[in-house]
Amino acid sequence: MEQIKNQSITRQEDDFAQWYTDVCRKAELMDYSSVKGFIIYRPYGYAIWEQIQAYLDKRFKETGHENVYMPTVIPASLLQKEKDHVEGFAPECLIATVGGGTKIDDPLIIRPTSETLFTEHYAKIISSYRDLPKLYNQWCSVVRWEKTTRPFLRGAEFLWQEGHTMHETEEEARTETLKMLEIYDDLGRDILAIPFSKGRKTDKEKFAGAEETYSIEALMPDGKALQSGTTHYFGQGFAKAFNVQFQGRDGKLAYPHQTSWGVSTRLLGAIIMVHGDDNGLVLPPYVAPIQVIVIPVAQQKPGVIPAARELYNTLKETGLRVKLDESDKTAGWKFSEYEMKGIPLRVEIGPRDIENGAVTLVKRNTGEKITIKKEELVDKVSSLLEEIHKEMYQKAYRYLNEHITEVTNKEEFDQAMEKGGYAKMMWCGNRACEDKIKEETNATARCLPFNQIPFSDVCPVCGKKAEKVVLFAKAY
Amino acid sequence: MEQIKNQSITRQEDDFAQWYTDVCRKAELMDYSSVKGFIIYRPYGYAIWEQIQAYLDKRFKETGHENVYMPTVIPASLLQKEKDHVEGFAPECLIATVGGGTKIDDPLIIRPTSETLFTEHYAKIISSYRDLPKLYNQWCSVVRWEKTTRPFLRGAEFLWQEGHTMHETEEEARTETLKMLEIYDDLGRDILAIPFSKGRKTDKEKFAGAEETYSIEALMPDGKALQSGTTHYFGQGFAKAFNVQFQGRDGKLAYPHQTSWGVSTRLLGAIIMVHGDDNGLVLPPYVAPIQVIVIPVAQQKPGVIPAARELYNTLKETGLRVKLDESDKTAGWKFSEYEMKGIPLRVEIGPRDIENGAVTLVKRNTGEKITIKKEELVDKVSSLLEEIHKEMYQKAYRYLNEHITEVTNKEEFDQAMEKGGYAKMMWCGNRACEDKIKEETNATARCLPFNQIPFSDVCPVCGKKAEKVVLFAKAY
Repeated sequence: MEQIKNQSITRQEDDFAQWYTDVCRKAELMDYSSVKGFIIYRPYGYAIWEQIQAYLDKRFKETGHENVYMPTVIPASLLQKEKDHVEGFAPECLIATVGGGTKIDDPLIIRPTSETLFTEHYAKIISSYRDLPKLYNQWCSVVRWEKTTRPFLRGAEFLWQEGHTMHETEEEARTETLKMLEIYDDLGRDILAIPFSKGRKTDKEKFAGAEETYSIEALMPDGKALQSGTTHYFGQGFAKAFNVQFQGRDGKLAYPHQTSWGVSTRLLGAIIMVHGDDNGLVLPPYVAPIQVIVIPVAQQKPGVIPAARELYNTLKETGLRVKLDESDKTAGWKFSEYEMKGIPLRVEIGPRDIENGAVTLVKRNTGEKITIKKEELVDKVSSLLEEIHKEMYQKAYRYLNEHITEVTNKEEFDQAMEKGGYAKMMWCGNRACEDKIKEETNATARCLPFNQIPFSDVCPVCGKKAEKVVLFAKAY
Repeated sequence: MEQIKNQSITRQEDDFAQWYTDVCRKAELMDYSSVKGFIIYRPYGYAIWEQIQAYLDKRFKETGHENVYMPTVIPASLLQKEKDHVEGFAPECLIATVGGGTKIDDPLIIRPTSETLFTEHYAKIISSYRDLPKLYNQWCSVVRWEKTTRPFLRGAEFLWQEGHTMHETEEEARTETLKMLEIYDDLGRDILAIPFSKGRKTDKEKFAGAEETYSIEALMPDGKALQSGTTHYFGQGFAKAFNVQFQGRDGKLAYPHQTSWGVSTRLLGAIIMVHGDDNGLVLPPYVAPIQVIVIPVAQQKPGVIPAARELYNTLKETGLRVKLDESDKTAGWKFSEYEMKGIPLRVEIGPRDIENGAVTLVKRNTGEKITIKKEELVDKVSSLLEEIHKEMYQKAYRYLNEHITEVTNKEEFDQAMEKGGYAKMMWCGNRACEDKIKEETNATARCLPFNQIPFSDVCPVCGKKAEKVVLFAKAY
C-alpha cells in the first residue's frame, strides 16, 4: 500500500483529466463499484460532503426550511404529468419493473429528481393561503443513467439536496429562487473558497419544466466551466399539472408559485480542480475534514511523541479538526501522504523544535514554512487557517477574472476559447445564435450574469441588435 | 383544516392499531405516497429522526467509525454470492431491469441492505493487518418489497443506518457487535426514554448470513414486542464468499471477521406506541423537535403577546428547541394541537400571570400544571424536561417489568400471552419447540436475554433438559 500511495500522480500540464482521476483515487475520496457509473463515496470524500451539508442545513433551517423524505421511486405515470419535465429526464431513467417476484404494472422510476413527488404531496396538504409558504428540503441520492461518467462530475448516482417550495405569490417565489442562489454563493465564499459566477440560464439551458433557471458556475483550471448549483422558478406549471390549488385571501381558488433548487457532490469536483496541484488535493480549511495534521519528526528520539501529543491535545481542545499521526512511517512519507490529502496546515515537532521551545508550521497551499514559539500555537494556527482560506479564494478569484474575455467578433471568441475561460459576449437573444456557437466551438451559454453592463449593441453571430450580456464557455 | 386537526382520534382501548395510524397522520409525522408501502416522512416525523441521527452519529464517530456512501443498487449476481443472505432477501427485492431505455443484462436490486457492497469494497482496500479494523457506517434508505405495510413499523422503504466493520480477530469483532448494541441501548435510555430488552437471537430468528444476531426489543402497550435494532457477528462467511484476505502479523493470509448493525425509522413507531395516549403523541424531551411550546392566553389583551415573546426569547437563548404560537387560533385549539404533537412542555402566559409576575407550565406526560415565578423560568423548564424524561422512562420500565411472566407450562404460557408482554421460558435449544410455539400461539423467541438466571431445568414444550432462558412474545 505504501508504495502505491506514495507514488507521484500525473502532472496537471501533462494530462489534466488523468490528474483529476488520480487525485480522486489516491486521496481516497472515492472508489469504483461493480456497477458502471455508480461510485463509492469513501470516508474522506464523504466527510467533505458532510461539512457542506452542515453549512447548508444550518442556513436552510435559519431561513425557515424543513427537511422531509420522499419515496426513492416515482411511478412512471406520475413522472409523465408535466410534459417538459418527463421529456428532459426520460432518456436517463433507471426503471424498476419487478417487485417481490411479480411484474409491476406501473413501472417505478428510481428518482432522478423529485418535483413530481413533492407537487403531488403538496396537492394533498395545501388548501388555504394559511398553508403557505411550504419550504421543504430533502437530502438524498438521485439516479441518472448517464453513458459517460466521471467521479463527482457526472455519475449514475450522486448525493444532493433538493429544495421544493410553494408560495402564495409570484413575487415571493421569485425572491426565494434568488435567495437560495445567494446561499449557494455564500457557501462558495465562506467555506469552499470558490468564487462563483451567478446569473440566469438561457431558455435553451434551463431546467426541464422551469420558467427560469439560475445557476452558480465555477471556472476550472483547464478553462472549462462547471455548473455547480441551480435554482428554478417554476411559475404555476407543475401546480396546474398536479392540480394544486389554495383558497386565497380573496376567497378565490388559485395556483401557488413553485421553486426548486439543488447542489450536489459535484461540488467536490469543483474543490478538487479549483484548488488542487501536482502534489494532490488542496482543501480549503473550513471544508477540510482534517484541518491540521500533527507530525512528530525523528519520533524515536525521547520526548518527541509526548510533545506531539501535547500539541495535538492543545489544538483539539479549541474545537479544531486535528489529527496526530504517530504511526511508524517516516516523517517524509507522512508529509507526502497528507499533502496528497490536501490537509491545509501541517504542524511539525522534532528534537530541535523542542529544544528551542518552537513548533514548525507548513501551509499546504503555498508550501510556506513558519517557525513559531510553542505558546503562540493556538492563535497562530487559527489565524493561518483564516489566511489560507483567503489566499485560496483570492487565487481562484484572480484566475477567474483573468479568464473572462470580452469578445465582439468570431475571431475574438475563438481566441477566448483558446485561452480558456469565459467569452463575454453581447447576444441578440435568439436560440439560433446559441446553437451556432455550440456547433462551431462546443461552447454553451453558461449564464446571463446579474451584473449586466453592455459593452456593444451588436450580436457577433448574426449582426442583429444585442442587449444581453452572456458568458459562454466550454463546460463539464 | 382546523376542524380536521382538532377532531379527536380513536381511543387506544377501542382500537389500538387505528389509534396508531391516527396519531401518525394527525400529528403530521407521515403521509402516504401514490406507491403502495412507500411513505412520505413529513417534517415533524423527519425531525425526530434527525435527533436520533445526531445522537448516534456522534456516538459512532467517538468510537472511531467513519461514514461512507455505497451505491443504491446491487447487481443480482453480487447479491447471490452469499447463499443464506440472498435466500433471506430475494423474496422482497425490487429489481431494476431497464436503464436509459435499454435492458440491463445483470438486473439491479434496489438495496435491501448493503453487506455485499461493503464486502466487495473491503476486498479491494484491505490487504494487511495494518488496514484493520475498518469501521464504516452508512446513513441511507433501503427498499424491501413488503406485502403488508404499516407506517414506520414495516414499509417498502425505510431510513436507517447500517454499520459494516472488518476486524483482525474474532474477539475484536465480537466485542464490536456487543459495543454497538450497548450504544443502541444507551439511545433508548438517554433520549428515547425506552427501556430495551437485550439479548441474542435464536438461530431461527437470526439475520440471513449471520453467525449470531443480537437485538434490542421494546415492549408495546398492546403487549407485542418490537424489534428495534440488531447487531450481527458474521464470522468469516462473507469474507470467504467475497475473498477478502489480509496478510496477518505472522505473514500469513487470513480472512477478517465481520459485523454489521442497524437501527431504522422503526424507532419512531416505538416512540409513538410506548409513550402516546388518547390525546396523541407524547414525545420524550431529548428527542422532541420542539421541546417547549409557548402559548399566549387571551392574546388580544394588551401586553400578552410581548410577554409571550419575552419568554420565548429567554428560552431560545438557552439553546432549547422552543416555539411560540401567536397565530389567531384560540388558546384551547392550540392546547389540543400541541398535545396531539406531543410537545413535552407547554408554557402559558395570560393577563393574570402577567399581573402576578407568574408563568404557568403544563407537562404533556402527566397533565400536571405548575405555576412559577417568571424569574424561575429557565431553571424550572430545564429541570422539568429532565423530570419528564425520567418519568417517561420509569413508566415504560414499570410496564415492561410487569409484563415479563415466568412460565413453566403451556397453560402459563397462554396466560402470559393473554396478559400481553413476554413469556420468560426455559428452553431446550431445539428449533422444533420454537416452531411449535409459533404455530400454536404466533409468539416468537425475541431473544435470549444477557441476564441468564435459570428458574427451572425443563423445556415446557418437549419436557427435555433446558438450560437457556428465552423471552417469547408476539411481535410486530
